Amino acid sequence: MELPSRSIEEAVNEISKLPGIGKKTALRLVLHLIKQSKETTIDLTQALVKMREGIKYCKKCSNISDQDLCSICTSPRRDPSTICVVEDSRDVMAIENTGQYLGHYHVLGGVISPVEGIGPDSLQIGALIQRVQAQDSEVKEIIFALSPTMEGDTTAFYITKKMKDLPLKITSIARGIPLGGELEYTDEITLGRSIVARTVYDQN
Amino acid sequence: MELPSRSIEEAVNEISKLPGIGKKTALRLVLHLIKQSKETTIDLTQALVKMREGIKYCKKCSNISDQDLCSICTSPRRDPSTICVVEDSRDVMAIENTGQYLGHYHVLGGVISPVEGIGPDSLQIGALIQRVQAQDSEVKEIIFALSPTMEGDTTAFYITKKMKDLPLKITSIARGIPLGGELEYTDEITLGRSIVARTVYDQN
Repeated sequence: MELPSRSIEEAVNEISKLPGIGKKTALRLVLHLIKQSKETTIDLTQALVKMREGIKYCKKCSNISDQDLCSICTSPRRDPSTICVVEDSRDVMAIENTGQYLGHYHVLGGVISPVEGIGPDSLQIGALIQRVQAQDSEVKEIIFALSPTMEGDTTAFYITKKMKDLPLKITSIARGIPLGGELEYTDEITLGRSIVARTVYDQN
Repeated sequence: MELPSRSIEEAVNEISKLPGIGKKTALRLVLHLIKQSKETTIDLTQALVKMREGIKYCKKCSNISDQDLCSICTSPRRDPSTICVVEDSRDVMAIENTGQYLGHYHVLGGVISPVEGIGPDSLQIGALIQRVQAQDSEVKEIIFALSPTMEGDTTAFYITKKMKDLPLKITSIARGIPLGGELEYTDEITLGRSIVARTVYDQN
């Protein structure tokens, strides 16, 4: 499609670099911005620049943060004896959303994936080991909340090996049939695992 | 969803003001920008600001343009004796895309809609009349390419009345069954109109 102006073309090109946004959607957004006041565009772009320039990672858990330490690591209401190990900040948000977890986190920044050239050294694994080995460490339990893929399992296995001499309880979030899921539509591997890892029914 | 940083929250809020983008998509875009280099965000925002600040409207046809006059109005290869009247710049792009039209355009900026408080004076109708009445006007034909709605028809009717003393041929783009459309699924009004407005079959 030929566009009426070079500056529109450039804006459309930049917007359509974003994931899930094609040229047509980008053009719709640009024409929307043109219809609005100039302030709308200024506000949008300033918020983006401020966000991108101001973004920091917590020095303790590597979660996204405004400060040197994130609000979870500094909160007196969170239990520092448990660390939940996740791939990225989105996982932290997802778990926080459940309201079921009150411990700390550790964001790895990915999982070990030889195919993509991601080794243990490009992740925050060393920082995690340091955290639990520290003199003043109160950590008693590590919970793995990684993707149920070969890469996720490899990463959990690697970290577990590194921690084998430490007096820690190491657990993983439960795998099984999702709530509301139907048995007959569940894949065989999940169903098989859920039988092997069956839990004791509370009879009270 | 609780976000880990105020600046992310503000960026998400601004992005989700765009049409068709909700909070979840906005967050996905923000997290994408965080993963990319700072330059990605800078390039995107600069392109948007440049586009919004630099946007002009052609002084002749009101189409979006980089210059005082748009590339269609200044092109020596376009026929100035025909003016195609459209609602907005997107319609110009759509018609240009067909490659079937080589005349000029006139962008009204909308259609007459008493319900939305849009009268003839808030549109570029006066400018169109001036254009065809000008001493040096070469205009011989006006083609209406407006939406087939009551508002579109009203607008075409209003303009036609205003031009009734001028030696102009006034036409409208053809209404009928779309190519590839099936007769039985076409609505009755379109089908009825397409019979009344039947065209002579070329027997050569």
